[in-house]
Amino acid sequence: MRVYNFSAGPSMLPLEVLQSAQRDMLDYNNSGMSVTEMSHRSSYYDEIHTECKALLRELLSINDKYEILLLQGGASSQFEAVPLNLLKKGRADYIVSGNFSNKAYKEAIKYGDIRLAGSSKDANFTFIPKNCEIRDDIDYLHICHNNTIFGTRYTELPKCNCPIVCDMSSSILSQEINVDDYGVIYAGAQKNLAPAGLTLVIVRRDLITNGMDICPTMMKWITQSQTESLYNTPPAFAIYMAMLNLRHIKKNGGIKSMQAYNEEKAGLLYNYIDNSDFYSNHVNVPDRSMMNVPFVTPNTDLDKKFVKLAAEAGFVSLKGHRLAGGMRASIYNSMPREGIVSLIEFMKSFESENK
Amino acid sequence: MRVYNFSAGPSMLPLEVLQSAQRDMLDYNNSGMSVTEMSHRSSYYDEIHTECKALLRELLSINDKYEILLLQGGASSQFEAVPLNLLKKGRADYIVSGNFSNKAYKEAIKYGDIRLAGSSKDANFTFIPKNCEIRDDIDYLHICHNNTIFGTRYTELPKCNCPIVCDMSSSILSQEINVDDYGVIYAGAQKNLAPAGLTLVIVRRDLITNGMDICPTMMKWITQSQTESLYNTPPAFAIYMAMLNLRHIKKNGGIKSMQAYNEEKAGLLYNYIDNSDFYSNHVNVPDRSMMNVPFVTPNTDLDKKFVKLAAEAGFVSLKGHRLAGGMRASIYNSMPREGIVSLIEFMKSFESENK
Repeated sequence: MRVYNFSAGPSMLPLEVLQSAQRDMLDYNNSGMSVTEMSHRSSYYDEIHTECKALLRELLSINDKYEILLLQGGASSQFEAVPLNLLKKGRADYIVSGNFSNKAYKEAIKYGDIRLAGSSKDANFTFIPKNCEIRDDIDYLHICHNNTIFGTRYTELPKCNCPIVCDMSSSILSQEINVDDYGVIYAGAQKNLAPAGLTLVIVRRDLITNGMDICPTMMKWITQSQTESLYNTPPAFAIYMAMLNLRHIKKNGGIKSMQAYNEEKAGLLYNYIDNSDFYSNHVNVPDRSMMNVPFVTPNTDLDKKFVKLAAEAGFVSLKGHRLAGGMRASIYNSMPREGIVSLIEFMKSFESENK
Repeated sequence: MRVYNFSAGPSMLPLEVLQSAQRDMLDYNNSGMSVTEMSHRSSYYDEIHTECKALLRELLSINDKYEILLLQGGASSQFEAVPLNLLKKGRADYIVSGNFSNKAYKEAIKYGDIRLAGSSKDANFTFIPKNCEIRDDIDYLHICHNNTIFGTRYTELPKCNCPIVCDMSSSILSQEINVDDYGVIYAGAQKNLAPAGLTLVIVRRDLITNGMDICPTMMKWITQSQTESLYNTPPAFAIYMAMLNLRHIKKNGGIKSMQAYNEEKAGLLYNYIDNSDFYSNHVNVPDRSMMNVPFVTPNTDLDKKFVKLAAEAGFVSLKGHRLAGGMRASIYNSMPREGIVSLIEFMKSFESENK
């Protein structure tokens, strides 16, 4: 029996995608081999690689000013690749709205004059910092669009005169975005795109240069952009799974439909929490994430009991991150509406038994 | 119908491994989810991660002086990670025996006093350089154990007073090795271990330090060694496939049996080529690879025809690398003996029709 997996990532994939992968596992498309065995220089793989990039371009309306890179190493590698590729004047500003943007900031300060333009750390990241003063003469501003651990997200971009670099690991493909608002978008794949092991970078072509002298060849975007992300062997199976998932999104109406579905799902859960005097969510309401919903019961003992009983009932990985405590329901694209409805039913019965 | 896939990598995996992955694709071990969807902090994944490392330790007889790292980025990332982690005196020697060791050398020269201690480039890498003079006061000597493109391999290690760093991408798990002979062994997974997207590093613990100041956090072995290779989300599915493959190797007698099987397979093919006056292999005989067998027909037109007809007959990816020309049969662990026997039958009939 499949469970409802509320993990913050890696997380659920559409059943249809898993079924395709299962069907193809011994023989992809009459090639006589699995995608896991396929030369990355073969025509079979070339079609997968090309279709994956084309679907990303189509679904996210990425125009020709932008390059799409399919990399390894996770968003954590981009925390360093970003300054190593972009610092020319040697200055950048960072807004710290959660744990991962803080990590990105801490990596960047090794490489230049990096300023903290805003932070909500003192409030345990329960809101998105607003009205930050961004310096004029800098290479870029870095933000994190959705904060997986604390359950916040940007709904309006900061004003600045430089390219915005945005970590979209936990919100990519979940809502419509205007790519032209950004200089660089990067995302680990393991929430809304594919299994872990693939990192997506969407970068405006004019920002792709040789970068800092100390930037390793393998971290240079130019290395991968000049070779169509085939400088060395790509994570082919994860790219194939991404292609299957993107096909699934397209078939189901594209990002616009995903957004409507995600708004409905998150709305159901927040609405239930807000109308409960047992559960609560501590995030500044306008900054609430559509992907990660943290909540607590009246005390930490009940939180623990909740997580345990929920798992036994088939609602798994609901334990909150240790930095936030309580529970967290990560409800990415592939969490079905029925998963939310069933979780709310469970929450109701837990409340009535423990109030 | 499954084909005989002679690709240099990614390449064949055991049918049994693919069947297990297929069976588990919707629900791994009654977890209610696929390994592709699983939190890397879950107990289910922890068991996979731990078993994969334990099997590597057991099968390769890796003692406690060595750390096993499961990374991303391919051997190409290690071309830079090696000098960035190991250079302290700032000096290292490289022996260039093929295309990839040449790439490793070219990346390293950015970081210190790097000397070319030997090269077979002038002979298009048809032999392994011997009797190289290795400097005494250096941080390490770098070699590549098996040269995928040119079909050579080391059978005796160079003498030196420093740690040997060895790229074993295309020979790891194919023959018995004495890990204690090395300071560092690294390997992309996509030939003998797992699908692409996983990189194995076996490193002597005393060589794990903070490395050069400019070494990015994500390239530091110490980062991953302190976190059991869970600093950020690992390539979980590739690690799971590695575990399945290692179980398969263990069940079939371990590395000793793999070596005997590989010696037999390579012996059949080399023996046939050597006794033919139609096909030939240009590699210095004592340096011949057991994994990659390059060969040619009497002319390049026949080479092209061979590759085409072979593919139609179910022997795919036999085209040689553009740097070597002709054909190349990559016959890693998972290429069955029947694949070699059938290929030889095809070669015989091609010869009789085209002589």
